[in-house]
Amino acid sequence: MTCCRAAPTCLRYSNAMTSPCIDIHSHFFPTNAPNFAARFGDPSGPWVTLNDHGDGTGMMMLGDKPFRPVHSALWDAKARIKEIDANNVATQIICATPVMFAYDAPAGQAAYVASAYNDLALAMCADSSGRLKALAQVPLQDADLSCKELTRAMRAGCVGVQIGNHVGPREMDDEGIVRFLAHCAAEGAAVLVHPWDMLGGDRLKRWMSAWTVAMPAETQFGIMAMILGGAFDQLPTDLRICFAHGGGSFPYLLGRLENAWHRRDIVRGISKHPPSHYLNRFSVDSAVFDHRALRLLIDTMGADHVMVGSDAPFPLGEEHVGDLVRNQPDLADVDRARILTGNAAKFFNI
Amino acid sequence: MTCCRAAPTCLRYSNAMTSPCIDIHSHFFPTNAPNFAARFGDPSGPWVTLNDHGDGTGMMMLGDKPFRPVHSALWDAKARIKEIDANNVATQIICATPVMFAYDAPAGQAAYVASAYNDLALAMCADSSGRLKALAQVPLQDADLSCKELTRAMRAGCVGVQIGNHVGPREMDDEGIVRFLAHCAAEGAAVLVHPWDMLGGDRLKRWMSAWTVAMPAETQFGIMAMILGGAFDQLPTDLRICFAHGGGSFPYLLGRLENAWHRRDIVRGISKHPPSHYLNRFSVDSAVFDHRALRLLIDTMGADHVMVGSDAPFPLGEEHVGDLVRNQPDLADVDRARILTGNAAKFFNI
Repeated sequence: MTCCRAAPTCLRYSNAMTSPCIDIHSHFFPTNAPNFAARFGDPSGPWVTLNDHGDGTGMMMLGDKPFRPVHSALWDAKARIKEIDANNVATQIICATPVMFAYDAPAGQAAYVASAYNDLALAMCADSSGRLKALAQVPLQDADLSCKELTRAMRAGCVGVQIGNHVGPREMDDEGIVRFLAHCAAEGAAVLVHPWDMLGGDRLKRWMSAWTVAMPAETQFGIMAMILGGAFDQLPTDLRICFAHGGGSFPYLLGRLENAWHRRDIVRGISKHPPSHYLNRFSVDSAVFDHRALRLLIDTMGADHVMVGSDAPFPLGEEHVGDLVRNQPDLADVDRARILTGNAAKFFNI
Repeated sequence: MTCCRAAPTCLRYSNAMTSPCIDIHSHFFPTNAPNFAARFGDPSGPWVTLNDHGDGTGMMMLGDKPFRPVHSALWDAKARIKEIDANNVATQIICATPVMFAYDAPAGQAAYVASAYNDLALAMCADSSGRLKALAQVPLQDADLSCKELTRAMRAGCVGVQIGNHVGPREMDDEGIVRFLAHCAAEGAAVLVHPWDMLGGDRLKRWMSAWTVAMPAETQFGIMAMILGGAFDQLPTDLRICFAHGGGSFPYLLGRLENAWHRRDIVRGISKHPPSHYLNRFSVDSAVFDHRALRLLIDTMGADHVMVGSDAPFPLGEEHVGDLVRNQPDLADVDRARILTGNAAKFFNI
């Protein structure tokens, strides 16, 4: 985007360039987690651990294999604050890296893991002078244990919960998941849905295609499951639920789904309305890395259902958090302000 | 879209509403194919056949199982012409329904199948007073046999070839597939890439999700394989290649891929340039069923790289062929004309 010529517009643009934002999608991973492998015994896991290289970098390990190169903003509140200061992020919401979910483990183990990680997330926030807020994780394979941990974590200071978009073959319309979401609505806990455990298997192992192809497909499928599987029809309208990465492929493929819904009965599932009817039932983050994609996202979801989400501090996140929104052309000031801060403040009640 | 108020614009809009188009993506399936099961013996197949109900409807059968309800425009030239007349389609390009590909069969069988189907496609076109043109199919599991059948089919009257986006684990950067594409460039044969053999397995069996989730992911992955696997870098720039369904999820997710390419070396494969560099190397059809999605598609690919494609006469296709493009708001007349007819005439040399 080039700078405009008219002085008043230029001033507004300049303000937007330095506007603070609330970043609703960022991850943490602690260095000081309990030793789950030792606690649960050899057959459990592989669990994710972190090798802190001591120079501001580290390596996440899945069992004894390198999983992802990372840097200290992932685990160190001071490093994180420095990073978000540089990006004009007023408040950043942190949540687990999805490999921490433990949805494959026995439910009791996953409940212990969730509780431990949630306390560590809150400890990181406690070191941040209020700049960081935490989403909880729950043992989603067990709805009762999930409800229990959600209630505990919210009382301990979490502002909502992050869940994966499925538990094995159980999708977002699964009875247990819907029951948990109803509990979130009742407790006033906002929900962020993050893709994980990606489809595609060996074919998508090249070029990180699990992240670039499968993750957006998982998110699209999660939204579809809530629509076509009747979850939105069952759940209260005051449930606040947001899907990561700009709703995955959903916003661009809405037309394809809508056409299919009208023309083939087997597409409709038990939904009462066509997919477009449900767009006001969920939000998305802005992690689409392209002004044309953000335009489609805002035009489709409405400016009141998009919030800045960076996926920081991972390399596939937005390097300069919020700048895609700050620099988005043809966006009214009032809408830009909503997307930068207003929607998130309301969504997470912060 | 509401009608505009200014008379001259209104006239242009009115013209656009009835403008003829070239539809580059439609399917056929013949009623009079050879009995492949009998020819190749019991272990082969299951082969797709068609039950013509005699009342203008029919059922495609995969072995002895119903596969898809269809109507006579799929196999009867007269019925097809009536349908395209009603939609102001000047010329329609037909190609195989992907279940006809036989990429899993022994290559010799697939070559026979391709040859038989190609002749039947040309026979349907011969009944159309020039309104229908055919794309060939080839036994893509064998590059040599594919080159041979392509040359034969082009001499017999096909205007190009349709291929699936992969053959089992062999993607669009596979040596044999790239060699075949180089042959297409040398022969001046245009290529349409159609998603098929969709990822996701059992999880995507509900709600036709293989069509609404996996197909767009397959197409995105096919484009990525040509970029990151170095196929575009190797192939001549005069190769004319088009990806179905608006490029699948690729256009919306380009920003995500571009960001990942710049920030993680393992994303880059052997590509020489970032993904956005290759946008002028391929075209897409317009089958996105939503004006916001078509806007993103045109803004991303350029108006000279989009062509009307309906996916007719299947129910998941565009019911009123070309109307999405005809009614697209904020599209210059010259660009609308390109997308309706000009690009396709050049691309297929018709």
